[in-house]
Order: sequence, then C-alpha cells, then structure tokens
Amino acid sequence: MAEYRLCLLLLSLTTIISYSVQSLGSPPPLRSPSYKRAPRFLGRFSGPTKSHLQIQPQYETKYFEQRLDHFSFSDLPTFQQRYLVSTEHWIGPQRLGPIFFYCGNEGDIVWFANNTGFVWEIAPQFGAMVVFPEHRYYGESFPFGSKDEAYKNATTLSYLTTEQALADFSVLITELKQNLSCKDCPVVLFGGSYGGMLAAWMRIKYPHIAIGALASSAPILQFEDIVPPETFYNLVSSGFRRESSSCFNYIKQSWSDLASTGQTNDGLVQLTKTFHLCQELKRTEDLSDWLESAYSYLAMVNYPYPSEFLMPLPSHPIREVCKRIDGCPAGTSIAERIYEGVNVYYNYTGEAACFELDDDPHGMSGWNWQACTEMVMPMSSSQELSMFPTYEFNYSSFQEECLKDFGVKPRPKWITTEFGGHNIHATLKNFGSNIIFSNGLLDPWSGGSVLKSISESIVALVTEEGAHHIDLRASSPADPDWLVEQRATEIKLIEGWIDSYHEKRKVTFSM
Amino acid sequence: MAEYRLCLLLLSLTTIISYSVQSLGSPPPLRSPSYKRAPRFLGRFSGPTKSHLQIQPQYETKYFEQRLDHFSFSDLPTFQQRYLVSTEHWIGPQRLGPIFFYCGNEGDIVWFANNTGFVWEIAPQFGAMVVFPEHRYYGESFPFGSKDEAYKNATTLSYLTTEQALADFSVLITELKQNLSCKDCPVVLFGGSYGGMLAAWMRIKYPHIAIGALASSAPILQFEDIVPPETFYNLVSSGFRRESSSCFNYIKQSWSDLASTGQTNDGLVQLTKTFHLCQELKRTEDLSDWLESAYSYLAMVNYPYPSEFLMPLPSHPIREVCKRIDGCPAGTSIAERIYEGVNVYYNYTGEAACFELDDDPHGMSGWNWQACTEMVMPMSSSQELSMFPTYEFNYSSFQEECLKDFGVKPRPKWITTEFGGHNIHATLKNFGSNIIFSNGLLDPWSGGSVLKSISESIVALVTEEGAHHIDLRASSPADPDWLVEQRATEIKLIEGWIDSYHEKRKVTFSM
Repeated sequence: MAEYRLCLLLLSLTTIISYSVQSLGSPPPLRSPSYKRAPRFLGRFSGPTKSHLQIQPQYETKYFEQRLDHFSFSDLPTFQQRYLVSTEHWIGPQRLGPIFFYCGNEGDIVWFANNTGFVWEIAPQFGAMVVFPEHRYYGESFPFGSKDEAYKNATTLSYLTTEQALADFSVLITELKQNLSCKDCPVVLFGGSYGGMLAAWMRIKYPHIAIGALASSAPILQFEDIVPPETFYNLVSSGFRRESSSCFNYIKQSWSDLASTGQTNDGLVQLTKTFHLCQELKRTEDLSDWLESAYSYLAMVNYPYPSEFLMPLPSHPIREVCKRIDGCPAGTSIAERIYEGVNVYYNYTGEAACFELDDDPHGMSGWNWQACTEMVMPMSSSQELSMFPTYEFNYSSFQEECLKDFGVKPRPKWITTEFGGHNIHATLKNFGSNIIFSNGLLDPWSGGSVLKSISESIVALVTEEGAHHIDLRASSPADPDWLVEQRATEIKLIEGWIDSYHEKRKVTFSM
Repeated sequence: MAEYRLCLLLLSLTTIISYSVQSLGSPPPLRSPSYKRAPRFLGRFSGPTKSHLQIQPQYETKYFEQRLDHFSFSDLPTFQQRYLVSTEHWIGPQRLGPIFFYCGNEGDIVWFANNTGFVWEIAPQFGAMVVFPEHRYYGESFPFGSKDEAYKNATTLSYLTTEQALADFSVLITELKQNLSCKDCPVVLFGGSYGGMLAAWMRIKYPHIAIGALASSAPILQFEDIVPPETFYNLVSSGFRRESSSCFNYIKQSWSDLASTGQTNDGLVQLTKTFHLCQELKRTEDLSDWLESAYSYLAMVNYPYPSEFLMPLPSHPIREVCKRIDGCPAGTSIAERIYEGVNVYYNYTGEAACFELDDDPHGMSGWNWQACTEMVMPMSSSQELSMFPTYEFNYSSFQEECLKDFGVKPRPKWITTEFGGHNIHATLKNFGSNIIFSNGLLDPWSGGSVLKSISESIVALVTEEGAHHIDLRASSPADPDWLVEQRATEIKLIEGWIDSYHEKRKVTFSM
C-alpha cells in the first residue's frame, strides 16, 4: 500500500506546482494525507543560466521602486523590482513606438528573457521597445532586502500574490511611459505558462494599460472545478499512449512493481542500483516522485526538434523514451525498462554518473507559497486514463499541509473570484478583446487553457503538435511549418491590434 | 488678503471631498497652504435617517465575514460587513432570478437603501433579489470592532480603499450565489455618485461577477488631468448664472465684501448677526466655507420638484435662491442678500433660530481619508467662469495637509493606474460592455463623468435638466417627462442585458 508523492512542475517557464498522488496499484485506495513537497527543479532552472538563443538579447538592467502592498496604505517598506529593457529597435515616442512587455513569472527574469526569443526576434519589425520585468519575490526582486528575509515566514511572504504582481507591472509601465514621454505608446503583453496567465489577466483587468496580450500555454482555467482535476495527468498519459500503448502500460504497471520491490528486504538497495542513484534510496516514494516529474516535464517539452530548454533532449522526446522502454530485450524487468526510458530525460548526454533525486529539499520556494495561497490547482489522477498512480485531490489534506508548511490557509476560490474562469466564453463574449490564447495539444497544461476562440479578437490558436509555449521560443531552422505559420498569425494579430489602436486614437481625437 | 477654505461635498449620496480655495478677490494671490477640513454634512447625512420613500423598502439585515486585505495573506482580523437583502420579489434560482446589487458608498447603507427608490421599485418587475451591501469603514461595517478603533490611525485606516471594497462586493456576491444555489443568476450593479464609480469600475474589473452596471452621476474622470480641475466649480457657477447673471455677480462679489467686513473692528460680530449664527464668528473663512458648501449642494440637488434629500427644498432651488438674492430692495447690502439666498438652503422650513457653521469639526471621516489617499480629485476655481474665490489646486500643499491630518501620503496617480480614465473612449471602445453612465447636466459632478456613449452597450444617458443621480430616486407624481423616459430607457437596457445573458448561456451550453 504505497503512497506516491508527485512533484509536478508547471515547468515551461519553471512554474512549479506540487501536490500529491496516492497509489492505487492493486491495494484498495487509502484516504491518506496529501503531501506537498519541494519543487525539484526550481533551484536548477530559475537561476540565471546561459542562453540557448541564437540571438543573444541586448538589454540594460534597471531597478524600480515598488510599493509592497498596492491595495492598502500600510506603512510598509518598498522594494526594488528588477527589469530588463531594450530600446535598441524602438522607433521612439513621436512615432508611438510600441512597448513589448513580458509578464515575468516565477523565477529569474534573465532566464525568461533568454528563453523567450520570439519577443526579441519580432521587436525590430515593430520598432518596439522590449521590457522584461521580474516578478516580485523572484530573481533579485525581493522585499525586505534579501531572499532570506523575504521568505522568512508567512508575514513576509504575504505580499507574494498575482494581483500585487499585476499592479507592479501596471505601475512600472505607467511610470516608464511617463518618463519616456510616450504615454500614448501602445503596450503589448507577452507571457508563457504562469506568465501567460498574468498576461491574459492583465489585459482583462488593465485594458487601459495594454492593448493586447499573447498568453501562451496559460492554464487560466485550471482552478476550482472549471476543468476536471484529472485533465493534466490524463494529457501527460495520452502523450505516452499515442507513442506506444505498451509504453503507457509499462509505466502504469511500474508503480506497484517499484512499491513491491521497495518493501522486500534489499529492495531499496536494489532500486538504488537499478536507477543509478548517488545516495541510497530511503523511500520508494522519492523515486516515484522523480519519475513522475520526468514524465510530466517530458510531456511539456515534447518539442518536434532537439532542445535544451530544461535538459538537453532529442526531438519528440517521449517517442524516444518509449522506444527505450519498449525496446529492451524480452525478460527485462519493468524497473530496468523504466530506468532506460527516464535516462533519456535525465541523462540524454550520458554525462551523469549517478542521480540525485532531490536538489531542493526544503521547498520554501515562491511557487510553493503561491500554490498554497491563491494558485490552488486541484489535480487528480484517474484510474482509467492516467498512467500515474491513482489519486483524488483532497482539499482538506491540502490545506492541512499548507498550514503545516507555511502557516497559511489557502483561498481556493479567490482566483476565480478575482479573475473569473467559470463560463469564460459567456463572460468574455462581448467583453474584452485582443487576447491570443496559444496552446499546443501535446502540452498537458493545454487542458486548463482556452482552446476555442471566444470572440473575433479573443482568439485561441491551437496546434496539434505543439508543446508548452513553443511559440515563444526563438525561431530555429528546425521549426516545423505549423510553428512558422502559428508565429506568423500571432504577428499579424498583434499588427492588427496596433493598427486598430492608431485608428481609434484618430477617431476619438476628432470627436 | 483673505483665504477661504471650501468644503465640497460630493454630496448626492454624501460623498464628501474637501479641498481648499484661495481668495483672489482684489488683492494679488498668495501661495498659501492648502487646507483640508471636516466634511460638514457627513455626521448629519450618513447616519440612519427616516426614509422619504413612498414605498418603504423591506429587507433583512445580515452580516458577512470579510478579509481585511484581499490582496495579501497577512494575518489580519476579519470584520463583519453589513448588508441588507430582500428576496420578497425574487423568482428564485431555478428561473435564474436576477440579483440587483447596489454598491454601497461612503455612509450608512440604510440611508442609501432608503434613498435609492428606483432599485426597489423596479425589482418586482424583474423578479429580482435586492442586495445593499455596506462599504467597509462606514455605517456598522468597521474592522477592529468599532469605528473608534477602525479610525484610530493610518495603520487601522489603511485598508479603506476602493479596491478592497470592490473585492468585498465580489466575495459577498460569490458566496451569496453559492449559498442560494444560484451561481448562474445574473447580477446587475447599481450605484450613485461614489457608489456609481464603484458600480462602473466593478463591471469593468469583475465582468464575470456582474453582467452590467447603472452608474449614475459617477465622476470617474475627475482624476489627475483627465478633466480640467475647474470643471466642478464652473458647473456650479453656471447653474446660478443660467438663473440670473446678477445673482451670479452678487455671489462672486460677496467673498471680498465678507472678507473686508471681517477685517473691520466689529466685522465678525456684524457678520454673526447678519447670518444669524449661533456662535460668534471667529474667522470669515468659516462663513465662506459654509456658503460655498450650500452653493455646491444646491447645484447637486437642483431638482425640478420639491425634495427632502439633504434638506427640505423647493423645486428648482437655485432659482429660488437667486430670486431671494436679486429680490431684495435696492440698498440691501450684499451680505444681507447672500443671507436671504442661503436661507433657502439651510432653513427653507423656517424652523432654524440660528445656524451652526460646522457640526463635524474633527474631520476624521472616512471620505477625508479616501480623498487623502486614492480619491485625489484636483479642484480649482477659475477667475472667469467661477463665482467662487479663485483657487488653483496645489498638489504639494494638498499632500502636506494629508500628511498632517492622517500621516499618509496621497497616491494621486493610483486611481488612473488601477481603473484607467485617460482616453476612456479609445480604451473601452472594443472592450467592456453593459454600462450606463447617467448624468444630469445641472449636476456639477457631470463634468467628471462619461457624457458620450462609448459603444453600443456602454451608453451615456444625459439629461439637460437632471441633477445628481435623480434617476436613482423613487419615482414621484412630480417627475417630469424626461425623467420618466430616462428611467424607462434604463429599464429597457437592463432588460436587454439580462435577455442577452440568457441567450449567451444557451449558445455556450450548446457548444
């Protein structure tokens, strides 16, 4: 009767959500407490890393003084928000040069700037300024002087919310425009993953600040009961099943196999050896978490060309994983097959001698705080369609864990109260405009996003073969046609927003 | 070289803004510090008063537990928000009975309920539930257990902001709908004056919560540099000039006359006698404030029929004031003329033996806090078009005064950052829907509102002869035709919103 904890990383741009999965292998399901755990990759990926971009973005790094609480007049210390800015291609205020504004997400903004080549590539043709502001409590933008102080406790963390982040962006834009004497310059928002959610919400909440938003892989509907909680894991699983049903079945079978092995006398030693772990395995659950993370990430970065977004990977990495799992000689144990497969993700270059299961064991990460407060995305794993251990999201256990970890009580209904989500088509049909929701159906987060156009100008761009916000990445000679077309459509839509903005200005001026 | 302080009351529904006016009579203008002072009528009008309604609204009084800061996870005490609710005419959840939700403004909600007859009168024909929630920090809805505690200092007051109030409303609606099993029931917002601003902003910021808003006399553009700061006083003045240019001139002349008299030996005694003051006048400025308030209020409640909204008044009260000022026998001093005129406002029933100039001298009112933090509405008085002492709004003095009074620094650009306002026509042309901005041109606040329709469904209803949100008042046999028509149009538009809501639901359900 094993329990597995699954650390799920809303990866793309390092958005990370952690939650728990309960094994349903063969024994009857147990009502077990929900576990939250450290995001495995935050430390590794949100730090400044070298760029994989063809073009290296050129920008200045600046700092802007922000209020800690925009929505009260409490006497709190301000903090310095870092932002990267490039005016290299900007056509200036006289010609109302546009401002391309990337809504920084949960990590170091330099990493996002380096991994969002699309914005840098198209800026010259629009004569646009480019701004990459950092999200509060990440990177270098810490209140209270340092990350340690900012992350000290629930009181210091309490201003790490999406609404405050959007207000930061709005105040920053307003001040920038004033300082540059370009208060009428149109602002276009960009964002991927959590940053995409911010971009979409900001366009809806601050229509006077930005004329439109490209929200790539933004699961704004992954809250409360808007989409079924099984959506994410079903999609990860179908990504494997479409490559090979035997692969899917091997993985599905593996959890109880690993648990059984772990319970035998030298089982943990055996697993340590099979999986080439650097330290001896203490609980099978740690291994399961490690595997589950790999599968979820693989689905997100299931790109059609070789990539180094998170890890160096071949094109169609799930295909490669399944080829390895399926391709073992008859008689190979399931554990060995799984190792062969996961090796594609963790060690494609073959450089790793052994594996560390967890490199951020404390889990006091900003995203964990966000997931324990506002960003409550219920996730379950269904018996039928998921290859993961069956698990039913249990809010009480979740809340208990957040109280234990952070001393904070989640507000699971707040995001939908503040930003909506239920009946979004009816709500936004004649309200709002100029949002692109772009999604690739291979991306497991696509199930929580907007996949049907809502109106003429709130448009869903869906690609069959796309993964997590691939459109925001730099172009590459290996780009498939559909990706080239998708980006061309996005450019055309953004041009349309800007043209229409100029039109409206003319009309209202002449009124 | 007299200085006058002018206490301006955004009256209508007791919204009160205070600011200062510097005399420019004949002596050269002095750069003098700006004064803020107590709102004169808050104590008198925002308390529960007897209803002047034909129909007495029937409701239950309830309380709802609210977070103090919706936008952080600070560990703060909650507070009880009072709300009035009537389900008397509600057709219930099965038939998706609408919810009419009045955005409570800066005062006791019972007073607003009693003075917003329109909502109660039309609820039966819509089968609507009626909800009147109280604005935090007013009436009985105090955090920290009592008004004294809530108003103790800048720290306790710091959560008195419009964004928190809108979040209160949104959370309350969401919970109410859930408890009544009517999560799909359409919500229509109503509000007058500051309440109208809240209604409009809430429709823009929370489109998923409410399907439309009737924002009556809502000066959402009275911020920063959106409309000229002279607008309000010019409109008050033109209300007098249209009745009589000599009346306008007498008033315009009076300020320097009063100041001169006040500077003579027994001048203050003389003015005390002329104006029948209960206590001996200490400074001419106190008298000027009292007069300026009367003129501003008179313009707001310049209704075409006798009313008892703030004070018992005849129909067209400015006409009556001017008749008295102009009608004095030749040789009557200006001070005596002014007394005769203002007597219409302060003592129409003739019951007052003498007048108290100020009945709330401490000025720690909620609205003063709001005016010193977010709701910074710059107001000047122009030499040419205003009958008031000339005054130029000076932000530095204003800020200094707020620091002195409340220990708080205003954020004059925050409202336009959070809610917009600049280029509102261009911004909302293809964004947003279902807002009625109703205004009467006699109302001096109309100059800061939306007077031209923005789109097919963001509609301006402007009446030549209307005063401050007259449309929200109960109907009366004395209603002029244009008012009857205006209300009929409003009802028709609201019906349209509800019908279209049902249509969209059908369409999206069948998707």
